[in-house]
Amino acid sequence: MRPIITLTTDFGSSDGYVAAMKGTILRICPTARLVDITHHITAYDVMEAAFVLRQATPHYPAGTIHLVVVDPGVGSQRRPVALRYGSHYLVGPDNGLFTLLLDNADPEELVVLNRPRTYCSAQLSTTFHGRDIFAPVAALLASGQPFDTLGSRADTLRPLRWALPIDDDQGIRGWIVHVDRFGNCITNIPHDLFVRRRGSRGVKCYVGNTIIKGVSRTYCDVEPGEPLLVFGSGNHLEVSVNRGNAAELLHIRRGTPVSVVFVDERQDTGSSIRNVVP
Amino acid sequence: MRPIITLTTDFGSSDGYVAAMKGTILRICPTARLVDITHHITAYDVMEAAFVLRQATPHYPAGTIHLVVVDPGVGSQRRPVALRYGSHYLVGPDNGLFTLLLDNADPEELVVLNRPRTYCSAQLSTTFHGRDIFAPVAALLASGQPFDTLGSRADTLRPLRWALPIDDDQGIRGWIVHVDRFGNCITNIPHDLFVRRRGSRGVKCYVGNTIIKGVSRTYCDVEPGEPLLVFGSGNHLEVSVNRGNAAELLHIRRGTPVSVVFVDERQDTGSSIRNVVP
Amino acid sequence: MRPIITLTTDFGSSDGYVAAMKGTILRICPTARLVDITHHITAYDVMEAAFVLRQATPHYPAGTIHLVVVDPGVGSQRRPVALRYGSHYLVGPDNGLFTLLLDNADPEELVVLNRPRTYCSAQLSTTFHGRDIFAPVAALLASGQPFDTLGSRADTLRPLRWALPIDDDQGIRGWIVHVDRFGNCITNIPHDLFVRRRGSRGVKCYVGNTIIKGVSRTYCDVEPGEPLLVFGSGNHLEVSVNRGNAAELLHIRRGTPVSVVFVDERQDTGSSIRNVVP
Repeated sequence: MRPIITLTTDFGSSDGYVAAMKGTILRICPTARLVDITHHITAYDVMEAAFVLRQATPHYPAGTIHLVVVDPGVGSQRRPVALRYGSHYLVGPDNGLFTLLLDNADPEELVVLNRPRTYCSAQLSTTFHGRDIFAPVAALLASGQPFDTLGSRADTLRPLRWALPIDDDQGIRGWIVHVDRFGNCITNIPHDLFVRRRGSRGVKCYVGNTIIKGVSRTYCDVEPGEPLLVFGSGNHLEVSVNRGNAAELLHIRRGTPVSVVFVDERQDTGSSIRNVVP
Repeated sequence: MRPIITLTTDFGSSDGYVAAMKGTILRICPTARLVDITHHITAYDVMEAAFVLRQATPHYPAGTIHLVVVDPGVGSQRRPVALRYGSHYLVGPDNGLFTLLLDNADPEELVVLNRPRTYCSAQLSTTFHGRDIFAPVAALLASGQPFDTLGSRADTLRPLRWALPIDDDQGIRGWIVHVDRFGNCITNIPHDLFVRRRGSRGVKCYVGNTIIKGVSRTYCDVEPGEPLLVFGSGNHLEVSVNRGNAAELLHIRRGTPVSVVFVDERQDTGSSIRNVVP
Repeated sequence: MRPIITLTTDFGSSDGYVAAMKGTILRICPTARLVDITHHITAYDVMEAAFVLRQATPHYPAGTIHLVVVDPGVGSQRRPVALRYGSHYLVGPDNGLFTLLLDNADPEELVVLNRPRTYCSAQLSTTFHGRDIFAPVAALLASGQPFDTLGSRADTLRPLRWALPIDDDQGIRGWIVHVDRFGNCITNIPHDLFVRRRGSRGVKCYVGNTIIKGVSRTYCDVEPGEPLLVFGSGNHLEVSVNRGNAAELLHIRRGTPVSVVFVDERQDTGSSIRNVVP
């Protein structure tokens, strides 16, 4: 089976950078299959890249190699690394990119890519390690080159300071970590934590200019134009508007705080949504 | 030959949604070849998706599977379907997406995708049928799974209210259905209707702030900066400006009415273009 | 080995044009592997396309076919061509697109694509030669069809007026030819010319609202937010800001002049950067 290499960068799609990486890969491993995750990560935004990686990469077949270049520290002392996690391989800078995907665990295998002469026939550039280190290493892995030949073994990755939500028996305080194309606002509150804390109580969520009561099963459970809470496809609590843009309508953006309160249903049975600020 | 699956969505290219669909397909059918049509359909815009599908998909080889997810009704009662039309397969929600491509005809085979447990090993999400229903079904078709095993037979699709132009012996009234990247403004007036109605008469077209006389063969038939009528690559009447952006220059957007009048050449031989509003 | 065809256009990613070309290629050459360079060249901008081609295509394996459609003159008398340069093939309009990649040299083989009936089974459109001429020719080359059967031999390409920088013993005057996604501003001053002229002297560069002294090895050689000069991944002098957007911060855009002066280090040893206009 031909090896799959996915690509995730903040390079955009107007320059020749991504295409230079793809050409480099195909020169080293002509059978590689290239799949773009996205090249539209906000420039230098390691946290956003970490989020999108967790959203997309778990769906790929065993043996897939994920090449990730969101690298504000290119040319500095941050370590270039390759690692194995379960049946997937990851290649990129060690700046926290992989923390979310690995759920803060250490990788099963990790090498620091400190043998540039092995990867790159031409002179190593100081500005474009995506083309000169990470792409060749992904291609060498795809060609079957053993992990240990690529660099020196290491044990731990640099963690990403990814603030977990604060929770107690009364509720959960988190924030919006990603706004998608539709304006859906995804929080850092995972489904399992929510269920454990909620018990059988009702839910009230304060976010942006709105209070939302109850969790819907699907966008269409409310009228078009109305806001709702839903557990999205990544199993995180999400603030949405049926057929509308929640970020715009509710004045929410990345970083907006989200406060979930669990309430005794007998005390507060109203199910309407009230906009605090019109 | 390896099966081709094309993808058309309104998911954009910044989130991990498209990549999650691609990973899902490659897990089920590792030999599939993935080709993006576009992921930049305006959010929820079924008519635009129907137009782009007709523009692009007829050029694909026999046996191609077209996966289309523009799905404002995800989670509601709209039916997920798969169908065969000639030598092509189409998979997506039954909301009018396929009407234009099929030219209002019924598909040769149609199944309602009502066996979710067959497609999706994990729990079915209520928000992302692209990943949990449509992508797996496209991959199963690509793997050679028989049509009938995917759901229940049905006969007709829900039609898209796609207003045809109004025509009589004096002229045709239509409107702009798509503005492309260059500002070319494509109408819903097809070449065959135009030719049939026109006969050997002259043409005057009222659109935006302009009257255009005559139909050009190519953009370069007029001076740079001048407007023209042309039958574009999809054989619809198109309002363009040579080396310029017709939408901006002539104050046209999607939905702008277009009025074509057929005139006796002897009465009106002038060929100049007059801007009504400067 | 399956043939690689890269695609570079100014078609954007919202219309069905690129997908129509890909379908056409796959119908003629089902084994072709398609790789996008970019479809976001500024509309009609031949110089930008020439720059991106030089940035990306040299990294591709021998035998790669590069399909390039940035074609403001479609339908006019500009010649459609296919050519061989070293081990690569190029297909597109003869409007200067290939000049930079070929470094003003003539191609080793060149044919004018004047046999449209050979390429296109349907009627040739007057507006979309990307789909009706260039894509089929790229696919025929990928299928192994001999060069000579595609058209008439020719010797020279139309040159692109690509102003080289002006240089003398005191310095070099050039300009910004491309601003990338990160705001890095790439000049038309190549590394070899710079080194030859500089000798062992110091460097002062006047650009936008800033004077920059000295050339850095990497973005991180200066503090975050500070401007620097660096030779980028394409070996051209580049004006950047560490972790910042140089174009915005320094008031630079495409076409901004860049003046490099070589100075005796003994006379001017200061290394600070002074903003002329705050």
